[in-house]
Amino acid sequence: MYFASDNSGPVLPEVMAALAQANEGYAMPYGADPIMEEVRAQVREVFEAPEAAVYLVATGTAANSLALATLVQPYGTVFCSPVAHIHEDECNAPEFYSSGAKLTLVPGGDKMTAEALRATIGKEETRGVHGPQRGPVSMTQVTERGGVYSLDELAALTKVAKEFGLPVHLDGARFANALAALGCTPAEMTWKAGVDVVSFGGTKNGCMGVEAVILFDPSRAWEFELRRKRGAHLFSKHRYLSAQMAAYLRDGLWLEAATKANAACSRLAEGLRAAGASFLHPAEANMIFAAFPRHAHQRLHDAGAKYYLWDGELEGDPDEVVGCRLVCDWSASAENIDRFLELVRG
Amino acid sequence: MYFASDNSGPVLPEVMAALAQANEGYAMPYGADPIMEEVRAQVREVFEAPEAAVYLVATGTAANSLALATLVQPYGTVFCSPVAHIHEDECNAPEFYSSGAKLTLVPGGDKMTAEALRATIGKEETRGVHGPQRGPVSMTQVTERGGVYSLDELAALTKVAKEFGLPVHLDGARFANALAALGCTPAEMTWKAGVDVVSFGGTKNGCMGVEAVILFDPSRAWEFELRRKRGAHLFSKHRYLSAQMAAYLRDGLWLEAATKANAACSRLAEGLRAAGASFLHPAEANMIFAAFPRHAHQRLHDAGAKYYLWDGELEGDPDEVVGCRLVCDWSASAENIDRFLELVRG
Amino acid sequence: MYFASDNSGPVLPEVMAALAQANEGYAMPYGADPIMEEVRAQVREVFEAPEAAVYLVATGTAANSLALATLVQPYGTVFCSPVAHIHEDECNAPEFYSSGAKLTLVPGGDKMTAEALRATIGKEETRGVHGPQRGPVSMTQVTERGGVYSLDELAALTKVAKEFGLPVHLDGARFANALAALGCTPAEMTWKAGVDVVSFGGTKNGCMGVEAVILFDPSRAWEFELRRKRGAHLFSKHRYLSAQMAAYLRDGLWLEAATKANAACSRLAEGLRAAGASFLHPAEANMIFAAFPRHAHQRLHDAGAKYYLWDGELEGDPDEVVGCRLVCDWSASAENIDRFLELVRG
Amino acid sequence: MYFASDNSGPVLPEVMAALAQANEGYAMPYGADPIMEEVRAQVREVFEAPEAAVYLVATGTAANSLALATLVQPYGTVFCSPVAHIHEDECNAPEFYSSGAKLTLVPGGDKMTAEALRATIGKEETRGVHGPQRGPVSMTQVTERGGVYSLDELAALTKVAKEFGLPVHLDGARFANALAALGCTPAEMTWKAGVDVVSFGGTKNGCMGVEAVILFDPSRAWEFELRRKRGAHLFSKHRYLSAQMAAYLRDGLWLEAATKANAACSRLAEGLRAAGASFLHPAEANMIFAAFPRHAHQRLHDAGAKYYLWDGELEGDPDEVVGCRLVCDWSASAENIDRFLELVRG
Repeated sequence: MYFASDNSGPVLPEVMAALAQANEGYAMPYGADPIMEEVRAQVREVFEAPEAAVYLVATGTAANSLALATLVQPYGTVFCSPVAHIHEDECNAPEFYSSGAKLTLVPGGDKMTAEALRATIGKEETRGVHGPQRGPVSMTQVTERGGVYSLDELAALTKVAKEFGLPVHLDGARFANALAALGCTPAEMTWKAGVDVVSFGGTKNGCMGVEAVILFDPSRAWEFELRRKRGAHLFSKHRYLSAQMAAYLRDGLWLEAATKANAACSRLAEGLRAAGASFLHPAEANMIFAAFPRHAHQRLHDAGAKYYLWDGELEGDPDEVVGCRLVCDWSASAENIDRFLELVRG
Repeated sequence: MYFASDNSGPVLPEVMAALAQANEGYAMPYGADPIMEEVRAQVREVFEAPEAAVYLVATGTAANSLALATLVQPYGTVFCSPVAHIHEDECNAPEFYSSGAKLTLVPGGDKMTAEALRATIGKEETRGVHGPQRGPVSMTQVTERGGVYSLDELAALTKVAKEFGLPVHLDGARFANALAALGCTPAEMTWKAGVDVVSFGGTKNGCMGVEAVILFDPSRAWEFELRRKRGAHLFSKHRYLSAQMAAYLRDGLWLEAATKANAACSRLAEGLRAAGASFLHPAEANMIFAAFPRHAHQRLHDAGAKYYLWDGELEGDPDEVVGCRLVCDWSASAENIDRFLELVRG
Repeated sequence: MYFASDNSGPVLPEVMAALAQANEGYAMPYGADPIMEEVRAQVREVFEAPEAAVYLVATGTAANSLALATLVQPYGTVFCSPVAHIHEDECNAPEFYSSGAKLTLVPGGDKMTAEALRATIGKEETRGVHGPQRGPVSMTQVTERGGVYSLDELAALTKVAKEFGLPVHLDGARFANALAALGCTPAEMTWKAGVDVVSFGGTKNGCMGVEAVILFDPSRAWEFELRRKRGAHLFSKHRYLSAQMAAYLRDGLWLEAATKANAACSRLAEGLRAAGASFLHPAEANMIFAAFPRHAHQRLHDAGAKYYLWDGELEGDPDEVVGCRLVCDWSASAENIDRFLELVRG
Repeated sequence: MYFASDNSGPVLPEVMAALAQANEGYAMPYGADPIMEEVRAQVREVFEAPEAAVYLVATGTAANSLALATLVQPYGTVFCSPVAHIHEDECNAPEFYSSGAKLTLVPGGDKMTAEALRATIGKEETRGVHGPQRGPVSMTQVTERGGVYSLDELAALTKVAKEFGLPVHLDGARFANALAALGCTPAEMTWKAGVDVVSFGGTKNGCMGVEAVILFDPSRAWEFELRRKRGAHLFSKHRYLSAQMAAYLRDGLWLEAATKANAACSRLAEGLRAAGASFLHPAEANMIFAAFPRHAHQRLHDAGAKYYLWDGELEGDPDEVVGCRLVCDWSASAENIDRFLELVRG
């Protein structure tokens, strides 16, 4: 009963097999391995983007920070949600990689609205040389609270960015889960919706540690390569990053894994709803923010279930309702979900 | 016949097996996995350093840059060899991670001498607030040209550093190869010789991508953790770093692999010497810088041998002597070495 | 009728005279001039702080950024008002000087409240290594909207900082105006109220370009000196900074100038009130944020009065009320103020 | 007898008068003062560069660091002399402003030669993404050891830079002294010789604290403005920078002052030569590096003469020859020089 995060589950067997296979013989280092050729072709095909520049790194924070560093100047600012991972969970990595750019938080909740974004961008850069200069808009899909922007919502946000001539970054640490939820194509959720650069996550969806950065406009590709090396994110034994991503993209494995995770999440959410839980945020992909009485949390805890309480403690009035976050990855079993629900119901 | 680098060979089977085993079930992310507990205990035992702080990253540049960033101020300078990896091969990563510190090159060759180091440090910081302030000394073991500092040489350099109150970093990307060459203990080659922080390489010696940073004085451990996260080098699925390092250190696998690499290198060097090659640098561990006639390089090239020419091109006067670099990893076979030598002899 | 800013008026005659006098003969550069000795003694006496480290720079942004850089780590965050100069008007200089620290905005208005500050600090650093670490609290006195924190308000804020073990910075670009308004001693408004480092402004109150940074705890003084030099803010002909500050502090000139500016502001504010203007913020020192009908702004504009409209344009419905900012410096004459008021009244 | 540096002498009376005059009335801040209009026109006329972008800062280190930051990427390197001010005397300011670029030292002495520059640039960037990328060439005129590059020497260096497509910066802290020595036009010593950006010094040649940065290609002007503000080098009471530079450039005052300084230096050098002193470097502008017996230094010291010993101490064998640096500014009087020489002769 492990619902703490989608980074605590095992690696997909197909990815493990690909690593074993990649281990045969010798390969040129630093991205010159032949599997990387394959990855590049796969990404371009999957995204219908034959010109895209494609790079691999091993952490989501690296993908985001390096992507943003190519889009913002040190005297600029990035527009994002107040709960964006780049703001709350990366220990100033975007500020570090951008040599001291700012993050401007768009007021509101988890999802940015086009209106709030327009108002926020509009206010910035009204002080000439004195204030930070407008930089990229960064959206997160799946959002930090388990929401999924619709294609219309994405397009409305990127339209605002384009009005101001600003580039758009998509933090897709859970890209596949969002895509599975929307049922659209990768192109529709990215460049067709106005996205310029994507952090395309693999780690949370069954890889060992690999994320792609996809630049639909390759004009800053060489700069990206230099920044990646300078950030110490260029792997010498790069074939093992390539092998993960190649297996992940082969035969739709990535979507299959995300579909499983989302389905597990739905099963869990429905069961919670039936058990009387309330929801702090709509569960649109593979994350649930739900609340139910403390006694249920206590039963789960005693049974060894792993997940984060979102507000409040395990100790206290047994009948008080306490929120929690539950995340499903590809490996979540119906059996574990049902056992979890049984414990909730008591 | 792949002698291009020790980062182009396969991962040790024991390390692959450990990754497969680590893939069972769930584990807490970001270094809270139980295997990391084991790694910490192993490193402390191997280095006879029960207080040491131990962290894992995936690239040697990350290990070096993060280690140095905890030792130097932005207004300081790092003393190193003119051919140090941190100076020539990391695309300004040390400058980036240290927020703009300088690297001061100690005149001379590959290995620093205590005299040159003392003279160089002495000259620095004679301008008060105007010049950079003295910072750490960084040594590389195995050196970039395949040399190994003796324990006396190491101690002489760290003695100079201590005279000036400066900390000492050891870039041990090929730590195991140096240790196998010297036949001393890890403690003797590090803290007993005056080293404060070590980049302890795994990748080049048969791991997939893992390096440990060992701080013998743990007082800056938390700062290191924050810098690692801010640098985007904290892995979410950390168990796969831990598993590599645990297998590497288990039952002396790391030394066994290095001993194999060094032995392969010796066989190759002896054969080259017998074939009349000259040596640009003494081959003391697993790297050879040798020179022999171009016609031999051409035969090797035609037969598919992979290695770097060090000065000069493949095309030209067949009898001209051309230098090259040859690196052996744990997987180098006697068969391939002998075939290589046969081609050299013509 | 020049009320655009207190940085657009002339330099005090005493300061000009001091510059002329300092121009005799030769003086050692870079802060080793004898006048700097005098300044150091003056500041220590005025602030009743015999141990304080005292440094001069030429811009307020330099004073703030360098002060904050000694108080915050690159992986930390500074707590400040959402309208703080360091956030809105310094083009990311604090982020630059701190090597990429963050600014966390305390929700609310111009003045921070202790409650909001405590809640904001409390929320930060709940994510361990993932989020930024808590850093200094920075308060602005006079605030950006012309308010003055009472001694009790200052103490309440610094108390919160101390609860969390955080240092406190005071942006005193208009320090003298605040002090004149409160009628307390410099010590009471700073270290006795819990302030650790002050940006003590001279430029806006009649100097040519000089600000002191005062570190009540001198333990990081040398670091400050190095950061100042590295930031290119150490003046070679330093005596001309010293001379300004020495004249400014001599015989209470600084307080006299601020008292004049505040009195001019009061006269202007009273006149505006009498003329029916409303106030966007209480005018507690030398800045007014007032609103009156557009036709009055148009008359003022036609007569050559200089000041900033705060919201809205000069063109439009003549009867609509439009806000503006009016700042008085030491040189504001009763004659100009009365002429301004006459034009407001129409 | 003050020959310690040209930053320890008084400000030119014309500059002081201009400051007094600029102090009348009100002026818009941050470079929008009308005197800055005049300065811009003057610089463009003096340099025959009608398109040039012109900015003022208060220190030479700021001028150099900001200029270089617009010319080099964080993953690049600046080519300069091993004794360049930007390398030895700016406490890592260029590294700071460029977000961590490197400085690559061109082997040789004070003056770079085209051959050494070509060889050094050629070696850099042969490692693809692994090493720093080639960036600007920075030359110093007058050099740090008192030499003056001829127009041919300058052109030979910039030709090398252009071969590699690299921009050229000129550190002209003593620009006027070099120009007076060469007797050419400002255009000939800059853009006609292939220089792209100049740090045009005023401070050392009789101003209080002002340096111009001149970008002959204005395409990066706005970036420069943002970097200047972010570096805290945009003055609010900017008119006092403008006034200095306007007076300095008016009616050839700047060249007149430099001519005086150079003439004083010649008188001093000739007298030293006659007295049997030797010269460590040719004295081509307003700096002398000379050596004479210690007893002469001791007499000078006792008589209160101020200058730096270059190698060696005041105490020791009276007959030993000890080097020193002597700098003349515009204010050096024949009387003081002759008295100095008399003391040398003993």
